[in-house]
Amino acid sequence: WFSSPTRVGFTGMEEILTRVVAPLPTYETREKSPPPPESNSLDFMHFYKSLEKEDKHRFLSKLSQDFGVDHKGASELAVKLLDTQLRDLATILQVEDRLRYSLTPRYKQLLNHISRVEGGVKFLVDLRADVLEIIASKSNETPHIKDLNGTLKSLLSEWFSVGLLRLERITWHSSCEILQKISQYEAVHPIRNWTDLKRRVGPYRRCYAFTHAAMPGEPLVVLHVALTEDISDNIQSIVREFATLDVEEDVNKVNAAVFYSISSTQAGLQGVELGNYLIKRVVRELQSEFPHMARFSSLSPIPGFSSWLQALLSQCRKEGRGSDLLSEQEWKEVEKATDSTSATQTLDALRRLITSSEWLRSEKLSSVLEPLLMRLCAWYLYGEKRRGYALNPVANFHLQNGASMWRLNWLADTSPRGIANSCGLMVNYRYFLNDTSKNSSLYLQNKVVVASEQILGLVSQFQKTSKL
Amino acid sequence: WFSSPTRVGFTGMEEILTRVVAPLPTYETREKSPPPPESNSLDFMHFYKSLEKEDKHRFLSKLSQDFGVDHKGASELAVKLLDTQLRDLATILQVEDRLRYSLTPRYKQLLNHISRVEGGVKFLVDLRADVLEIIASKSNETPHIKDLNGTLKSLLSEWFSVGLLRLERITWHSSCEILQKISQYEAVHPIRNWTDLKRRVGPYRRCYAFTHAAMPGEPLVVLHVALTEDISDNIQSIVREFATLDVEEDVNKVNAAVFYSISSTQAGLQGVELGNYLIKRVVRELQSEFPHMARFSSLSPIPGFSSWLQALLSQCRKEGRGSDLLSEQEWKEVEKATDSTSATQTLDALRRLITSSEWLRSEKLSSVLEPLLMRLCAWYLYGEKRRGYALNPVANFHLQNGASMWRLNWLADTSPRGIANSCGLMVNYRYFLNDTSKNSSLYLQNKVVVASEQILGLVSQFQKTSKL
Amino acid sequence: WFSSPTRVGFTGMEEILTRVVAPLPTYETREKSPPPPESNSLDFMHFYKSLEKEDKHRFLSKLSQDFGVDHKGASELAVKLLDTQLRDLATILQVEDRLRYSLTPRYKQLLNHISRVEGGVKFLVDLRADVLEIIASKSNETPHIKDLNGTLKSLLSEWFSVGLLRLERITWHSSCEILQKISQYEAVHPIRNWTDLKRRVGPYRRCYAFTHAAMPGEPLVVLHVALTEDISDNIQSIVREFATLDVEEDVNKVNAAVFYSISSTQAGLQGVELGNYLIKRVVRELQSEFPHMARFSSLSPIPGFSSWLQALLSQCRKEGRGSDLLSEQEWKEVEKATDSTSATQTLDALRRLITSSEWLRSEKLSSVLEPLLMRLCAWYLYGEKRRGYALNPVANFHLQNGASMWRLNWLADTSPRGIANSCGLMVNYRYFLNDTSKNSSLYLQNKVVVASEQILGLVSQFQKTSKL
Amino acid sequence: WFSSPTRVGFTGMEEILTRVVAPLPTYETREKSPPPPESNSLDFMHFYKSLEKEDKHRFLSKLSQDFGVDHKGASELAVKLLDTQLRDLATILQVEDRLRYSLTPRYKQLLNHISRVEGGVKFLVDLRADVLEIIASKSNETPHIKDLNGTLKSLLSEWFSVGLLRLERITWHSSCEILQKISQYEAVHPIRNWTDLKRRVGPYRRCYAFTHAAMPGEPLVVLHVALTEDISDNIQSIVREFATLDVEEDVNKVNAAVFYSISSTQAGLQGVELGNYLIKRVVRELQSEFPHMARFSSLSPIPGFSSWLQALLSQCRKEGRGSDLLSEQEWKEVEKATDSTSATQTLDALRRLITSSEWLRSEKLSSVLEPLLMRLCAWYLYGEKRRGYALNPVANFHLQNGASMWRLNWLADTSPRGIANSCGLMVNYRYFLNDTSKNSSLYLQNKVVVASEQILGLVSQFQKTSKL
Repeated sequence: WFSSPTRVGFTGMEEILTRVVAPLPTYETREKSPPPPESNSLDFMHFYKSLEKEDKHRFLSKLSQDFGVDHKGASELAVKLLDTQLRDLATILQVEDRLRYSLTPRYKQLLNHISRVEGGVKFLVDLRADVLEIIASKSNETPHIKDLNGTLKSLLSEWFSVGLLRLERITWHSSCEILQKISQYEAVHPIRNWTDLKRRVGPYRRCYAFTHAAMPGEPLVVLHVALTEDISDNIQSIVREFATLDVEEDVNKVNAAVFYSISSTQAGLQGVELGNYLIKRVVRELQSEFPHMARFSSLSPIPGFSSWLQALLSQCRKEGRGSDLLSEQEWKEVEKATDSTSATQTLDALRRLITSSEWLRSEKLSSVLEPLLMRLCAWYLYGEKRRGYALNPVANFHLQNGASMWRLNWLADTSPRGIANSCGLMVNYRYFLNDTSKNSSLYLQNKVVVASEQILGLVSQFQKTSKL
Repeated sequence: WFSSPTRVGFTGMEEILTRVVAPLPTYETREKSPPPPESNSLDFMHFYKSLEKEDKHRFLSKLSQDFGVDHKGASELAVKLLDTQLRDLATILQVEDRLRYSLTPRYKQLLNHISRVEGGVKFLVDLRADVLEIIASKSNETPHIKDLNGTLKSLLSEWFSVGLLRLERITWHSSCEILQKISQYEAVHPIRNWTDLKRRVGPYRRCYAFTHAAMPGEPLVVLHVALTEDISDNIQSIVREFATLDVEEDVNKVNAAVFYSISSTQAGLQGVELGNYLIKRVVRELQSEFPHMARFSSLSPIPGFSSWLQALLSQCRKEGRGSDLLSEQEWKEVEKATDSTSATQTLDALRRLITSSEWLRSEKLSSVLEPLLMRLCAWYLYGEKRRGYALNPVANFHLQNGASMWRLNWLADTSPRGIANSCGLMVNYRYFLNDTSKNSSLYLQNKVVVASEQILGLVSQFQKTSKL
Repeated sequence: WFSSPTRVGFTGMEEILTRVVAPLPTYETREKSPPPPESNSLDFMHFYKSLEKEDKHRFLSKLSQDFGVDHKGASELAVKLLDTQLRDLATILQVEDRLRYSLTPRYKQLLNHISRVEGGVKFLVDLRADVLEIIASKSNETPHIKDLNGTLKSLLSEWFSVGLLRLERITWHSSCEILQKISQYEAVHPIRNWTDLKRRVGPYRRCYAFTHAAMPGEPLVVLHVALTEDISDNIQSIVREFATLDVEEDVNKVNAAVFYSISSTQAGLQGVELGNYLIKRVVRELQSEFPHMARFSSLSPIPGFSSWLQALLSQCRKEGRGSDLLSEQEWKEVEKATDSTSATQTLDALRRLITSSEWLRSEKLSSVLEPLLMRLCAWYLYGEKRRGYALNPVANFHLQNGASMWRLNWLADTSPRGIANSCGLMVNYRYFLNDTSKNSSLYLQNKVVVASEQILGLVSQFQKTSKL
Repeated sequence: WFSSPTRVGFTGMEEILTRVVAPLPTYETREKSPPPPESNSLDFMHFYKSLEKEDKHRFLSKLSQDFGVDHKGASELAVKLLDTQLRDLATILQVEDRLRYSLTPRYKQLLNHISRVEGGVKFLVDLRADVLEIIASKSNETPHIKDLNGTLKSLLSEWFSVGLLRLERITWHSSCEILQKISQYEAVHPIRNWTDLKRRVGPYRRCYAFTHAAMPGEPLVVLHVALTEDISDNIQSIVREFATLDVEEDVNKVNAAVFYSISSTQAGLQGVELGNYLIKRVVRELQSEFPHMARFSSLSPIPGFSSWLQALLSQCRKEGRGSDLLSEQEWKEVEKATDSTSATQTLDALRRLITSSEWLRSEKLSSVLEPLLMRLCAWYLYGEKRRGYALNPVANFHLQNGASMWRLNWLADTSPRGIANSCGLMVNYRYFLNDTSKNSSLYLQNKVVVASEQILGLVSQFQKTSKL
């Protein structure tokens, strides 16, 4: 084992990289190179793990800059490719293959070897998480790091190809090891205790995860499903319902599958499509268990809605256009309900109400705000875009998968967190199985969002009311 | 499902390929392309399976020719790469990435998608076996097929990377499904019946296989090991020994591990290194079970030795140089033992003896032939080369892995098959664990064969005697 | 370990029994006796296994005679019980309990202790098989052995109580260990090779076994089921059908479950009801897999029918009453078909035909014999009794379970064995689930056989024709 | 299903018992009685479960009184047995067997049938728990209930015979279902949270349980073991030690196995020896994992010591003999430390200190009390008896198993619970494997307690000091 360094100068990094990242064999001998000793991979892993965060960044920069593609070799082969354009196809194909080979970063081999040692794949997943962090933090000075990221992503995509994933149903009979992780990873609707956890994997619930042979005991993406009579319009009836905790499931009461939580657990697998495949695989699983099941839908949170709304109100206040958001009637009601006497006051009161979640405690305020919040939220989900795609990341995820924006639900998540994040609203993205493929293309290629009448109605109300 | 065609014209192939092999998305939209419907992959698989062999070949030719790399696009990017040579690195890296992308054959995506459906990976393994067959049969007219082969091999190498393989120990408690396959696949020392099979997985034996999550129940490469007191010098004491079939293993009698059979089961995984990794993994496994075990060796067949010998004798006869192979003393003894009166007669008699395995029945002949055959065989293994590497494929395999050529064994396989293929000789390739890495490099890079004194002695006798 | 004796005198037996079979503790201290060291049980087992068969018998006699109930103690407590008859119930209950305890054979404790060591339960099962063999061989001199048998049977009945058995479905994925045993134990329709075995556990077949925690890997009773459209009338279509060996089961083609083979594997569990419970458990299993399945039936062999028939014909010949069995018309046809000229000749010819199975080769003879053999066989099954219960053991088994005698089938088992044993006839015992409980009582308590119209019709024909 | 009754009169009970508890068949037909329909057992179970506690008691009384042994039949056979005393042994054996059969309570059959239905064995275990409760509550009026208890215990003893139990090692990979139960059942050193639980099954710890095929997922008796360098003298270093939670075990640091908690989970299995067998089985398991391990010991609580001590002090105060317990020197020190001026005051102060656990907070008091409490506790464990056996139930358990009383440990359990129950003292019962069998006999048969010099020394100090 490599002895644990505390602070590493460039020399130490240099030394290990030179020793461990073998030069790319020539094209001719590429199949005749024995794999390097496993200790190379282990040394690299051990060295890297021992580094402080900042040193990790320096180390990765060095690796990606000094051990990447041989640019000179690549450009020579580009010249050669142009020279052979008039030759026979066999020659062209051969030069193309050499060129392709010459575009391989030198470190790619090392990554490949690391994947073979125990714990190697997990190491690379975590390494990529670090790479992504660097890119996020200082995006404009990292062309080489981006190349490293691309190489890692393409390798991980192959290793985590769906054919290599295992669907596991998690139940109360699953190992504590995995259930504790399920509990930990649940970010959407936190799990509080044993009973809560037991509920999530008990009757009328399903919990599925993809796992991978190279990372045993580690759920990669987790999907929680509630089996219900109708598509649920609130989360309380799912995560706070313990009446059926010990019953036998009655198959006749199962008409709908509601995906109420999906969590990816590995930052390093960003961009490697897993969630989409998990949903589709689970749909097949459920269809084989419940042949007559026909309704599949998410019940999804709307993170960011409250912040967006606050920002909107601030802006309106600043620009003095507060009343633009509300109909005249609404404006009056809010004014009255908040004892405000000026537009500014009213807007301030509104913002305060939303920040403090106080409106929830007054039935009157609730009913005044309901149409307003529903309308604004529908617009937020449907109309707010980033590069043409839905700004809200959850919406973007389900729309990419081919779901349609189906129903916005009032008082759907009354937990403090739900109220704070999205004024208690939740949304169903519905999966009409015959349309998902078409919808997905429409969205990804033409940026079209398929939505239900309810949503479209709210959006059109918003457009009429707002003079924005 | 695609309805089963009986004989398919070019039109049918054209139609399905056009429909199913989607164009490569542009570089910009490559992450924004929804996966095609699974039915595409299923249609392709179904169509292909329904084809006759010859049509398969035409189909693969078509696929590889018409749906490969876009040469024009690639050459344009090559121009662009040359244009940017003086620009900043970020630009160069970006163009390199585009060029790399443009060198992706269009069909690669389809192969990726196929790997995701059930049975898809196995389909691609079998597809590659067909591709290899085409290449073997008409090697000079297949540049595109070779490209397809390269693409497949690189994908399969990723999916069958060692980190994704599962080591399974096969015992009598394993499923009949897998044990029947073990029995079927055993090509080296065929298994005759239940008892024989039980013996191979019973006490003082180990049977290991690599399996893969995407091909459940299918052993990919199988290694049989005998646990012995000394490194075995014959196969009879391993596969014909039933005395210890029902005993408890005595750990004190286990000093050596003899790898007496290794079989790869998937033609389509040719060139994807599995056997080497399996041996090394098993060594680790055995070391953890028997911490004091220090001797690891194969007991290997020598396929091709008899044919080589026959050819040699023919040639000598033709060239009238028969006696060159034997010492004077030997020549006399053979003459006498075969009642021959001329060199030609003697050589013919020798050939007949070897063809008929008759020498085995006479103790006299055996002892006359022993030094001769040992010497010739040592040379065959050590001295006969193809492009600088050992001609004998089993030798080449173990030498690549870093084993040394350790001991040639007389009367080591007295089965009819063993006598016919290699005059009953077998060889141990010994794995000195501290040297394998070094040996492997020496062999692969410098074509040096590491051998024991016994082998080198025999080789030097051969060189002295033969005036070839 | 006890050293292995070769021939043991009474002294050796005496010695070990005295040492190992502890005296029964007094009633008062019965809960305060520490278990003897495990080595006692191991010594006993080892000693017993080392004995020759004859010595085993002597040893068991000795054990049962000298280490049984303390008769004096028992009779003293019987006196005491009579003395307390007029006392209060608490006293009576206490004396009854003491009496019950005093009737415990001294060796019972040892048997209990043996059951606790590894392999102990299996040892006792085999021990009882020996005990049964002694009883069968010399029944009139073995009162103590019978007591030992009774004690063993009652212990085994507790340990092999149905609640402690595990139902295992055997498939091609089961371990080779268990499948080889399934193959070995199949006595009814022998299994010839791997494919044959694979067929018995493949599509449209089910193979179930009871196993027991204390005898891992050992199927105790095995039931083979065919899933068919209609209740099968011959065995060929089940064990010689390979067309569906690799298909997916079509649930719509499964209307009936045919139990075509049931085998008990442990002689020592005779009288411990397992087969009956296995059938009922499997019915439940099948009903849950195929909710609409309504037809359950055996397809059973008729061992002993040919022998019975031969004996009948011999007797008729001796008594000169041959023609009594056949109608006048039949007699003529047989005479003609066999070229016989006298009654004796005809009967001899008939016997020869049956012994040699020659009739099968002639369509004419077959059609002449069919009504005759059907009639006689129906009588054999329905009318021939032993102590009031069906003479045929297979019939007795299914009738005890509550099945009805449902259909006799012509040319139902055309294997040499089937023809030889039962002239190719087989019978269905049908399980009407609502009636089994009632039928079972009727049969066991009132000796009534429930049979179908077909059977009853044949029986009545027999009674009319025969003047026996 | 029997419809759920709310309050049941005697008539309802009468009705169901008469219907469900079949009469004992005659001796002659005992093997020819079909089992009653399963619904009988289910009806009984359902009916019983629906009863209120008090009705359960009445119901069990009725069952045991009206459906027990046929006293008349038994006494008739007792007469018969006496009549046959002069006849041949075969006759005597036969009458004994009949008598034995006649002593079978009628309800025994029903219990047997219940054991066969799903959940039946667990039902009977719970039923016996109820029976034991009745006996405990009103012991002098329950002769029949005691008979029922005897019958149940003997059946359960057969079903839970060690040969039928499965040893399971519980780890973090075990199912949450079983780990939650382990957590729940841990009565000795309560488990507080996930980390605490993970610690108990992590490195340097072992957790074993016996489970039974008829009660899947239910640990019957649980043993917690710490693997240590030396036999632990306090519990804190075991249950509060988290430093090694994520390390690899170093086999060289494992010299001793400390059983620090053993819990039986089923009240209904009282008197069915499980704990003793579990300890012995685990010892074998550990010896095979750590061949050189030689030290096995419990680290046991001393429940009841504080109460006993309080009672003793009260009595001394009442009898004015307080100083008898302490040496003169001690008495002075306590007086001084507690500022007492009279014997009564001193004793009161002492009692208060112990009740309030206040002494722990003063180093001075601790050191004053240490010799006193050690001495008294040694006596409590060694000298206080009930019917000749150790009064302390934990001591009695380990002494029965053949352990010796090895070491009393000061400040061994400083949890509030440990201080309150036993003034923080714990004791090691050590298992010297060669002596357990002998020790067990000595204790059970001769009531001899084997103890170490430390214990005997403390006891003799006690005897010298106390003038009791």
